[in-house]
Order: sequence, then structure tokens, then C-alpha cells
Amino acid sequence: MSRKLLNSELPRLSPEAFKQARKLPLVLVLDNIRSQHNIGAAFRTADAFLIEKIYLCGISSPPPSAEIHKAALGAEDTVAWHYEKDTMQAVAGLREKGYTLVAIEQVEGSVPLHDFQPRKNKKYALIFGNEVKGVQQQIVDECPILLEIPQQGTKHSLNVSVSIGIVLWNIVSKIQ
Amino acid sequence: MSRKLLNSELPRLSPEAFKQARKLPLVLVLDNIRSQHNIGAAFRTADAFLIEKIYLCGISSPPPSAEIHKAALGAEDTVAWHYEKDTMQAVAGLREKGYTLVAIEQVEGSVPLHDFQPRKNKKYALIFGNEVKGVQQQIVDECPILLEIPQQGTKHSLNVSVSIGIVLWNIVSKIQ
Repeated sequence: MSRKLLNSELPRLSPEAFKQARKLPLVLVLDNIRSQHNIGAAFRTADAFLIEKIYLCGISSPPPSAEIHKAALGAEDTVAWHYEKDTMQAVAGLREKGYTLVAIEQVEGSVPLHDFQPRKNKKYALIFGNEVKGVQQQIVDECPILLEIPQQGTKHSLNVSVSIGIVLWNIVSKIQ
Repeated sequence: MSRKLLNSELPRLSPEAFKQARKLPLVLVLDNIRSQHNIGAAFRTADAFLIEKIYLCGISSPPPSAEIHKAALGAEDTVAWHYEKDTMQAVAGLREKGYTLVAIEQVEGSVPLHDFQPRKNKKYALIFGNEVKGVQQQIVDECPILLEIPQQGTKHSLNVSVSIGIVLWNIVSKIQ
């Protein structure tokens, strides 16, 4: 019999300890994400995996927002974020800072996620797109790495916050 | 330059082909999931990875529901499901059918997800719990395998539909 851990027993970082903790060199770029629920879930997942920063672009709403808060459970106050209206400008800035641009999108010649071998300590900007339209083609064109989550069913469309979870988990478990 | 694929170019199964496709021997058990958005997202993820069936237990709402539909995008019509009020009865039935019970929960002695080595062709019932309370202790007590998604941040609490995505992806990519 295995006892469930109490919240107080989980080795949770304080907000101060989180800010000082060494992050993984990964940032998320949210390219025109419509749903604040999805944005909130992205913050919560980024908190769980010690991601460096979230770039909110285009129509992606920045905090503060009651709906983001509800899904993020306050992680929007711990994970660093930056709003930049123009996604192209955001990714150009990230490339200048040494981040390799990675779009998660169903495109010709994409790499299946399980085949992607991220390099430890390399900086990646992981770009996720709008719930309906995906990552803009002009942003896809800027990315040397294009990843796809292989899907076999009738939809070929995961919820974007689920996709963010899967991709982050996959990369984090490979580089840690 | 990599062209984004049109919806019509994705190798999506028709609902009929999906019903006949060979599924992975994995079922989801949703133990008192409150949010219909989370239930809908679970259907959508189960569709993407060709999961056998979803067991909805306790307060987990079954389809049809407008909110489930909105998040599932219709996957609630392709993925098989069964409603069983008593989660204990559902897991007892699954065990009798040869499924190994796996709870995803933060418990003493849990196995970190990346260390879990699922066996090909073995049948697993993956049990996810309520958004606040998690999987009930009495259900945890029935499970020979207890998995945990390692988390490092301030919350130690992923959205349940994100957790379902991460666990399914992890297992599917190991057994395919």
C-alpha cells in the first residue's frame, strides 16, 4: 500500500527559490494562441519543468487575467514571460540570442518527436501555433527544426496545451 | 522551406476505419474528473494515439455534452467509452480482463515516468484522478504500478489533460 503524499510533503519550490533555480535553456513561443485556458496551462507546465521563459505573441493574451490564473494556478507569477506583438520579431530576437528555432507543426519533412535528439545545454525556442491555423507559414520558414507529434487517429489535432506538455516532457526527459 | 500540410493531406482515418483499426491495449480510467474540457481533451488525445477505450467513473460526465464535444472535436464519437459510477467496480472489472492497473499519482515509492518500461502487447489501465484530490487512495491501493511525472517547480500539479497526454505519449512511444 502506497500512501498518497500530502501537498505539504511535495518538494515544491517557493516562488523565490523558483526565480533563483537554474532553468533549462528552453523557451516557449506562443504564436497567436487564442484560448487563455491554454495559455494558463502552458504556464503551469513550464513551471513544472523549470522552463526559462514564455514569449506571448500576437493575440496570445498576457497576464494578468482571471482565466489564465485559473488554469495556471499562479504559475504566471513564477515563470518569466514577455509579450511581443510580432511573432517574427520575437523569433528573430531569440535567434540572435543563440536559440535554435523549433516549430511544432505538421509540415513536409518534419521530424517525428521521438526521433528528435536535443543536445544538452543547447538553447531551443519551441514554437506552438494557433488552435486552428497552427504556426504561421512565415514562422515555419524561419525554423531549422520542424517537429511533429505522430498521430494515428481521425483528427490529427491535439489540444495545444497537451502538445506543449508532450513536447516539453519529451525534450526535458532527454536532456536531464 | 517546408510547406505546412493541408488538413486534406493528413493521413486521417475515417470514423469507420478508426473503429476497425487495431488499437493499442491501453485504456484510460477517469476517476471523478470534474471538467468536461479535460474529458474532451482526453478523448482527443486517445483518438490521436489509437487508445482502446475510456472508462468514465464517478462525477466524470459521459458524452453527449456540448463542452466535451468542443474539446474533443468529435473524437467522443470515435473512441469507445463506458460509464461506470463506481471506480472500484470499473478497475476490478478491468483487472479481471487482464489489465494491469496503473495509477498516475504522487505517492510514496512511485516510479518516475521516464523509468517505466511498459511491455509490448501487455494490457494497461491508466488511472487519472480528480483535478484537486487526485486518484482516490482506495484505488491507488489496488494498483501494482504507481507512476509519477517528475516535476520541479512551485506547483507539482499539471493539468490532468496535460498529464494524460504526457503519460500516453511516453508509453505509446515506448511500445510502438
